[in-house]
Parts: sequence; structure tokens; C-alpha cells
Amino acid sequence: MSIIVLGTVALDTVKTPFGRRKHMLGGSAAHFAMSARLFTNVNLVAIIGEDFPAKYIDFLQKKGVILTSLIKERGRTFKWEGEYKGDLNTALTLNTELGVLSAFRPVVSEGQKKIEYIFLANVDPDIQRHLLEHMHSPRLVGLDSMNYWIHHKRGALLRLLKKVDIYVANDQEARALSGETNLIKAARCLRSYGPRMILIKKGEHGVIFYSDKFIFSIPAYPTDRVIDPTGAGDTFAGGFMGYLTWAKKINAASIKKAIAYGSVAASFNVEDFGLNRTSRLTLDDLERRLSMFRKLVLF
Amino acid sequence: MSIIVLGTVALDTVKTPFGRRKHMLGGSAAHFAMSARLFTNVNLVAIIGEDFPAKYIDFLQKKGVILTSLIKERGRTFKWEGEYKGDLNTALTLNTELGVLSAFRPVVSEGQKKIEYIFLANVDPDIQRHLLEHMHSPRLVGLDSMNYWIHHKRGALLRLLKKVDIYVANDQEARALSGETNLIKAARCLRSYGPRMILIKKGEHGVIFYSDKFIFSIPAYPTDRVIDPTGAGDTFAGGFMGYLTWAKKINAASIKKAIAYGSVAASFNVEDFGLNRTSRLTLDDLERRLSMFRKLVLF
Repeated sequence: MSIIVLGTVALDTVKTPFGRRKHMLGGSAAHFAMSARLFTNVNLVAIIGEDFPAKYIDFLQKKGVILTSLIKERGRTFKWEGEYKGDLNTALTLNTELGVLSAFRPVVSEGQKKIEYIFLANVDPDIQRHLLEHMHSPRLVGLDSMNYWIHHKRGALLRLLKKVDIYVANDQEARALSGETNLIKAARCLRSYGPRMILIKKGEHGVIFYSDKFIFSIPAYPTDRVIDPTGAGDTFAGGFMGYLTWAKKINAASIKKAIAYGSVAASFNVEDFGLNRTSRLTLDDLERRLSMFRKLVLF
Repeated sequence: MSIIVLGTVALDTVKTPFGRRKHMLGGSAAHFAMSARLFTNVNLVAIIGEDFPAKYIDFLQKKGVILTSLIKERGRTFKWEGEYKGDLNTALTLNTELGVLSAFRPVVSEGQKKIEYIFLANVDPDIQRHLLEHMHSPRLVGLDSMNYWIHHKRGALLRLLKKVDIYVANDQEARALSGETNLIKAARCLRSYGPRMILIKKGEHGVIFYSDKFIFSIPAYPTDRVIDPTGAGDTFAGGFMGYLTWAKKINAASIKKAIAYGSVAASFNVEDFGLNRTSRLTLDDLERRLSMFRKLVLF
């Protein structure tokens, strides 16, 4: 029972109204792993540079993340610097340094090629396709992307979407790729591009799920402790995909529960900088908040 | 079993990507009445001018709305003209003509003064206070306002908030009045102003309810049929207050159900221009969509 996640491992510098943190461990694959690890073995596929702190490698290993395919190359680690203001809903990117990420070609072991649960977190769609082509028996493939690729590699992204089961997008990305403003219309359009399941993340407003068989919508877990939202979407995806990997069954009930787990995991992520909160997260924490969440949304 | 609603009866001119309609029957009290009437007798307190079409009076009467306190004065009816673009979430006000509204002093009958369920829809807080002072035995008082009063009559609004049970605001208003960006913090702050129940409407993103005892959050009913959102918030309030008036009990279960009814009523309102859809709405329609809504949010 394993999942493989392709994405970034980064050094994040983040400023929010609650302070500034420099060169924290971050990146889509790292955030994904912190929640997915609660349900399943997480195989991380990413690249780091020579400047990557050894303590972060130790940390990921201690968390049980399988690092066989975390490649170290000559050059500098991918760095992102951002700031959140006001309602903390939107990040303002101050600086991006791609470093070794610009020449990333994922390599996975023969054993890892047999993993059936795959998540392609946000990197260049050509890199995502490259990994997917090497996988022997994909059973459930999720994909995340971002506005940059939607605008600069639309063709590659659309070709890739035909080969995935779940497209995870935030509301802006869903609108940008579909050209539809109404999110149900946007989801229906994205469904026509290939993925049989569409998950639209709306930040503090929760998630909408769309498939031919059913629609599902839940609010975010209401919290007033939003310190740093960086990686909330990846943490959501990790909880969602992690639970489905554990549950094995992919049906309406398991999908809804996976979305609830993902939402609750994301609500922990925003409560502290970087991975501070999710690195301490237990399945018990998740379960406890999930049952509170149920009470908050049932009528 | 009755409710009294103070608000506007207006002639609305609305342009959306789906067309333009001129001088439709609108206003906060009219939209409120269309959903509240499904649960209880609605006593409407508002003012109209000499130009108000007789057919609209007939229409309201046929819908069972009690018009004893709908005053006709010399002058012109309140008119609002607005346009919606893009995702139809925000109205751009093109023109407002107050007409007789600027000299409105509500007058209600002795019988109406005994009504226990009261909703003060969006008008000048001094007018809202004027009505409330004449009511003999308020049991549940709801209040809606708008950014204009928050900025221009903040003192009067804050004094009034001490006397109401439920403050219904959209997210912008909640943030403007509280000075908080996080909506849970905003709700807690608004609670400290007096009302023991805070309802924050987030348009297509649903509703957050806050009280000392519990928090509740539900998404909007997912729909791709958004033709004209004018009055959705008032339709929500009508369903919410209407159900509570019918239920008589005010507890966590009835409040959650009232919020669900309000949400579903609002989802019908946006499906056509003005009151076109809600004027045909039945309790059966509401019940049917409510049970679909349940399936969409349960996990």
C-alpha cells in the first residue's frame, strides 16, 4: 500500500502578518507527504540542490517518507519567496529561483514503477508526463498544476489531462483553463478534457467535487488560526489521495470521506508556518477534528 | 404564526450576461416575502410611490403577503439599477433613485405590533430602530444592513445591534463592520456588539453561522444556473426566518435546518430574473432540493 508523489521540495521564505520565516522546508511534494504519510507509505520524487540542509533530509526520513527518488544535483535548491496580506487568501510571489528544478528529469526505481497510486503535484507538465509514462500500472492518478503552466504549456497540460483520473485545481486555475466563471460549468468543461473526477479548491471557502455520477461540496473547516496558508492545497491533496490509497475502494462514499480528510488536514496546515503543524500531525488529530467538522456541517 | 418584515419594495432594472429587465418588482422586503411566505404569514412594511404598478400590488396579494402596512406616498417608488458581469458575484450599481424612501416612517397596525418574529431588512438603521421600538413583544429579531450604513451611520447601526438577536451580513459587510479579515474573528467581534447569532453570507460560497454555543458552515447549493443573483441574500433571510417562525423552537437543530432552507431558497432565486422563480416556488420544491442538498454535503 503505497503512493508516489512527484513534485517540488523547496526552501520557502514566507512573510505573513504573523511573522517571517526564511528557507523553511516546503514545496508541493513535501506538503503532500506530511498528510499522505498518515495513511500510506509515501514515495517522494523530487530534486534538490547542493545547498539543501541535511537536517531536512533527516526530518523527512524520520517522518517515514521514502526518499529513494529524491535526487540531489549540482546547483541550488528551488526557492520560493512569498507574502500574504489581508485575508491571507492570496500569495504574492516576491521571488522564485528555479535552480536545479529547471533541469529535473524524474528517475524512479523498478519497484516504484509498480506503485498504483500516483500524484503529480505541480511541476512542468512535461516532467509530469515523463514520470507517468514510466509507471507500469496506474490505478488512480491525480494531477495538480498552476496558472503558469495553464498559460505557457496549455497544449502539454491538455494532453496530460487525458491520462489522469483526478484533476485538482484551485478556483482561479479552473476558471482560467476552462474559460468558465461558474464553477460547476468550469468543472463540467474540465471533465470533458479527460479526468473523470474534478476537484476545485476554493481556499477558505472549501471544495467542490464534480464527476458524471455526483457532485459534492463542503466548506473549509472554520478556523480563526490562519498563520501561513502555504501548502494548504498540497496538504489537502495529500490527505485526499492518502485516504483513497488506504481505503482502496474508489466510490462516492470513499471520495467524500477523502475530501473531508483532506479538508481537515489542510486546516491544520494553515495553523503554523511551513510544515510546523503538519509534521506533528497524527491520525488521531485528524479523526478528532473530522468528527467536529461533521457536527459543523450536518443539518 | 406571523412574521413582520421591514424593508424596501423597489422597481429593479437589472442587466446580466443573460439579458436586461426593466422595472421588475424587487426590493429586500419583496424578495424576503417570496421565501418566508412558504412557512408563515408575512406582514410587509414598506413604502411605494404613485408610479408603483397596480399589477405588482395584485401579485403580492395573490402570493398571500399582507400589505396593510405597505404605504403609498406622493412621489416616486425607490428604484435600483445594477449590472452583473463575469462570475455574477458582485453587483455594479448603475443608478439609485430613493424617491419616497427618503421620507419613510413605518407605521404598523396595533395587531401587527404584537407579532413576535421580526426581520429588519436593509434600510436606514434609524428607520429600523423606529419600527423595532413600536413592537410590543419581540421574540426573535433579525437585522440586515449594507456597507452604506456601516460607513455613514455606524453609531446608529451599533446601537441597534444591541437590540437584535440575529445579525445577517455578507462577508464584505462583516469585514467592514468588524475590521477583521478572518470571518470567524469577524463573527466573534460582531457577536460582541450584541446579537447572539451572527450569519455571514458568502454568496456562491455559502454561509457561516456563529454563536457562543456553536459554529455552523454550509456551502451554497451548487448550481450552474445563475441568471440574476439580485435578492438572493434577502431570499435566504426569508427562508431562514420563515422556517424559524414556523418551527417556533430556536435551538441548534432548528437553526441549522433554517440555514439549509434559506440556502436552498436562495438557489432558486438566482435561477431567473427578479422574483420570476421564487414567485412560483412551493414548499415541495424546497423540500426536494433540500434532500438533494443533504446528499451533496454529507460525508
